[in-house]
Amino acid sequence: MIYSPAQRLAAEALGTALLVAAVVGSGIMAEKLAGGSLALALLCNTIPTGAILYVLVTVFGPVSAHFNPAVSLVFAIRGELPWARLAPYVIGQVLGGIAGTLLAHVMFDQPAFQFSVTARTGLAQWISEAVATFALVLTILGAIRVKPDAVPVAVALVITSAYWFTSSTSFANPAVTIARALSNTFAGIAPADVPAFVVAQLCGAATAMLVAERVFGWRRPNTAG
Amino acid sequence: MIYSPAQRLAAEALGTALLVAAVVGSGIMAEKLAGGSLALALLCNTIPTGAILYVLVTVFGPVSAHFNPAVSLVFAIRGELPWARLAPYVIGQVLGGIAGTLLAHVMFDQPAFQFSVTARTGLAQWISEAVATFALVLTILGAIRVKPDAVPVAVALVITSAYWFTSSTSFANPAVTIARALSNTFAGIAPADVPAFVVAQLCGAATAMLVAERVFGWRRPNTAG
Amino acid sequence: MIYSPAQRLAAEALGTALLVAAVVGSGIMAEKLAGGSLALALLCNTIPTGAILYVLVTVFGPVSAHFNPAVSLVFAIRGELPWARLAPYVIGQVLGGIAGTLLAHVMFDQPAFQFSVTARTGLAQWISEAVATFALVLTILGAIRVKPDAVPVAVALVITSAYWFTSSTSFANPAVTIARALSNTFAGIAPADVPAFVVAQLCGAATAMLVAERVFGWRRPNTAG
Amino acid sequence: MIYSPAQRLAAEALGTALLVAAVVGSGIMAEKLAGGSLALALLCNTIPTGAILYVLVTVFGPVSAHFNPAVSLVFAIRGELPWARLAPYVIGQVLGGIAGTLLAHVMFDQPAFQFSVTARTGLAQWISEAVATFALVLTILGAIRVKPDAVPVAVALVITSAYWFTSSTSFANPAVTIARALSNTFAGIAPADVPAFVVAQLCGAATAMLVAERVFGWRRPNTAG
Repeated sequence: MIYSPAQRLAAEALGTALLVAAVVGSGIMAEKLAGGSLALALLCNTIPTGAILYVLVTVFGPVSAHFNPAVSLVFAIRGELPWARLAPYVIGQVLGGIAGTLLAHVMFDQPAFQFSVTARTGLAQWISEAVATFALVLTILGAIRVKPDAVPVAVALVITSAYWFTSSTSFANPAVTIARALSNTFAGIAPADVPAFVVAQLCGAATAMLVAERVFGWRRPNTAG
Repeated sequence: MIYSPAQRLAAEALGTALLVAAVVGSGIMAEKLAGGSLALALLCNTIPTGAILYVLVTVFGPVSAHFNPAVSLVFAIRGELPWARLAPYVIGQVLGGIAGTLLAHVMFDQPAFQFSVTARTGLAQWISEAVATFALVLTILGAIRVKPDAVPVAVALVITSAYWFTSSTSFANPAVTIARALSNTFAGIAPADVPAFVVAQLCGAATAMLVAERVFGWRRPNTAG
Repeated sequence: MIYSPAQRLAAEALGTALLVAAVVGSGIMAEKLAGGSLALALLCNTIPTGAILYVLVTVFGPVSAHFNPAVSLVFAIRGELPWARLAPYVIGQVLGGIAGTLLAHVMFDQPAFQFSVTARTGLAQWISEAVATFALVLTILGAIRVKPDAVPVAVALVITSAYWFTSSTSFANPAVTIARALSNTFAGIAPADVPAFVVAQLCGAATAMLVAERVFGWRRPNTAG
Repeated sequence: MIYSPAQRLAAEALGTALLVAAVVGSGIMAEKLAGGSLALALLCNTIPTGAILYVLVTVFGPVSAHFNPAVSLVFAIRGELPWARLAPYVIGQVLGGIAGTLLAHVMFDQPAFQFSVTARTGLAQWISEAVATFALVLTILGAIRVKPDAVPVAVALVITSAYWFTSSTSFANPAVTIARALSNTFAGIAPADVPAFVVAQLCGAATAMLVAERVFGWRRPNTAG
C-alpha cells in the first residue's frame, strides 16, 4: 500500500496532536483527581500515555508514525526518510503537538493559550532526557530490525518505563516538549527550559543510532572494511 | 465461518451487557474501596474496562463486536453493515447495555432500577465526548485497515487512554451512555444529560469516518474522480 | 508434540500451585504495604494475578492448563477431556492449589496451616461467582474457537476485569477457592462459605457452555436438526 | 542473522545496564513521589520494570538477552551456551548492571557510589528468591519450548507478578542483586545479604531446569533410557 506525501504528513500531524492531547489531558485529569499524591498522578499520566502510543503507532504505522522530530532526523540520516521531507515532517509534528495542547485545554475548560512556569532544568534532567531518547531510538531501531510487529508495544512500554526511571519523566521528543511548554499544567515545562531538553534529546538519539548500528550489525554484509 | 443474524445479534447484546456490567460494576467496587481517592477510583474503573474490552472484542470479533450504535452506524454508512440490520443492532446494544447495568446492581446488592443524578454537561464535556468517539472510531477503522489482528488491543487501549485525557471520562458509546443513566453510582450520568452526549458522540464518529477515508486512502484505486 | 498423562497432570498441579501462590502471596504483600487503602490492595492483588495467569496459560498451554475443576468439567462434558482423566485432574488441581497456599505462607513467614475467617457469602456474591465463572468459561471457549493464540491474554484479562466488576472479587475456580480457604489473609474465604461458591461457579460454567455452543455455532455443520 | 560474540556481549551488558537503570531509577522516583505509601511505591517500581523487560528481551532477544547469570548458567549446562562464553557473559552482566546503578544515580542527582543498608535476609526471603528464580527460569525454558514469540511478554509478566508474590520482591538475578547492593535507595540490598540471595537464586534456577526437562519432555526422543 502506497500512501501519498500528504497522507503521511497528515498522519504525523494528527498522531502527534492526539499523543500530546493524551499526555496533557491525562496530566490535567490525574493531577485534579490525585489530590496531592504525586505518584498516583504520574501513574495516571503514564498509563494513558503508553496506551495511546500503542494505538497511534499501530494505526498510523503503515502510513507514517514518527510523531517525533528526533526520530525523523535519525531516519533522514539513515537514508530512510528523504531529506526534503524532514522539514515538513518536523513542522507538522510541532504544529500537531501544539494543536494537541490546545485540544486538551478545551476538553478541560482551561484557557487555550498558556505558558508553563514549571522549571525542568539541571544536569540530572538533561542526562535523563538523553538517556530516555537513547532508549526510545534504540528501541525503535532495534525492533524494526529484529521484530517489526513489536514496534508499537515496544515504543509504548519504553516510554511507560522511562516516565519513571528518569528524573525528567522522559519527554524524549522535541515536538512534544515544545507543545508541553504551552500548558501550565501537570505536564508542562517552562519555555526557557525547552532548548536544553531538545539538545539533550538529539544527543541521546544520535548516540542510539551509533550504538544500534554496531549492536544490530546494520552495515551491509559485503561492504569491504 | 458464517454466523447467522441471530448469532450476531446475540453477540452484540451479550457483549454490550458484559461491557456495561464491567464498567458499572468496577465503578461501584472502585468507589467503595477507594475511600475518597478519586484518581485511584478512576484507575480501578479504567483497568477493568480496558481489560474486558480486549476480551469481548477478541472473542466476539469474528461474530459481531460493535457493542456501540455509533460504530454500527459508521459501518452502515460505509456499506459494511446492511441498513436493515442497523436498527436491530442498536436495539440489541441498548437492551444489552441496560441488562448489564441491572446485572452489576444485582452483583453488588444494589436496587436494580436507579436513575443517576450525576450531572455531566457543558461544552468541555461535549467536546470531550466528540474527541473520544473520534479517537475510538478512527482507531477501529485504521486498525481494521492496516492491522486487523490489533483491533482488540487497540480498542481496549484507546478507551483506557481516553478515560483520562477527556473531562467526561470518555463514554464514547450511545448504548453505554443510556445504560449508565440507569445507575446512580460512580459510572452514572443523569438521564437529562444523555442526549447531548449522544449527539457529541455521533459528531465525533462522523468526523472520524471522514478523516479515516482521507488518511488511510479508503477509496477504490479505479474510481474516476 | 505429545505430552504424557503424567506430564499433563504435573502441569495442572504445578500451574495451579503457582497461580494460588501468586494470588495468596500478592494478597499478603498488597495488604501489608497498602496501609488501609483497600482499592490499592486489591489493585496490587489484581495485577500479579492477571500477570501470572498469562504466563502459566502460555507456558503450560500446550501441555495442559486448566488449573480449574470447572474448566476441566466443561471440557469433559464437551468430549475434549476423557472422563477418566477428570478426577485425577481435579485432585491434582486441588492439591496443587493447597501447595500454593502453603508456599505463599512460607514465603511470607506465616504459619503454614491456617483457616480463613473472612465471610464471603450472600446472594450478591453467589451471583457474582456465577457471572465471573460464566465470563471466564465463555472467554475460554470463545477464544479457543475464534483465536486460540489469544487464550492466555484473554484469560488473564477477563480475571483482571472480574476482580473488580464482581462483589466477590471473582474466585471463579473451585480449586482456588478451596486453597484460599486455607489462608487467613487478604485472599482468604471462610471454609463454610466455600460450598456455595463452588456451586455458583459450576452454575456459571454450565451456562457459559450452553451459551457458547449457541453463539459460536459449535454444532457440526452436518447434524440433521 | 548471525551476530558476533562482541555484539552478543555488548547486548548483554547494555541490556543489563538499562534493566538496572530502570529498576533503580523507578525505585528512586516511586519512593520520592509516593510519600509513604509503600504499595504505591512498589507498584510504580513494578510497572516500569515489567515494561522495560519486555522491551529489552524483544529488542536484544535475537542478539542475546539473558541479562542474568543464573539464566546464562542454565543455558551453559543445557549446552545452549558454550562454556567458554559463560564467564564473559557473567562479567558483562555484572559490570553492565553496576553501570546501570551509576546511571540511575546520575539521572537523579544522587552520589554515584553508594552501598545499601537495607537488610534483606532470613529464610522467608531466601525461599522467595528461590521461588522467584524458579518461576523465571521455568517461564523462559517453557516459553522457548512451546511459544518462542511469547518469551518477552512472559518474562516481563512473571517478574511483574513475582515482585508482589514474594517477600523479597523478587530480585531473581545475581547480576541485578549485586548492582542493587550499590544503591542505598528503594531498590537496594545490603551487600552482606547478597551472597545468600545469589545462592537461593541458583537453587531456584537449577530446580526449574530439572522440572522443565520433565514437564516439557526435553530429552531427545531417541535417547535410550
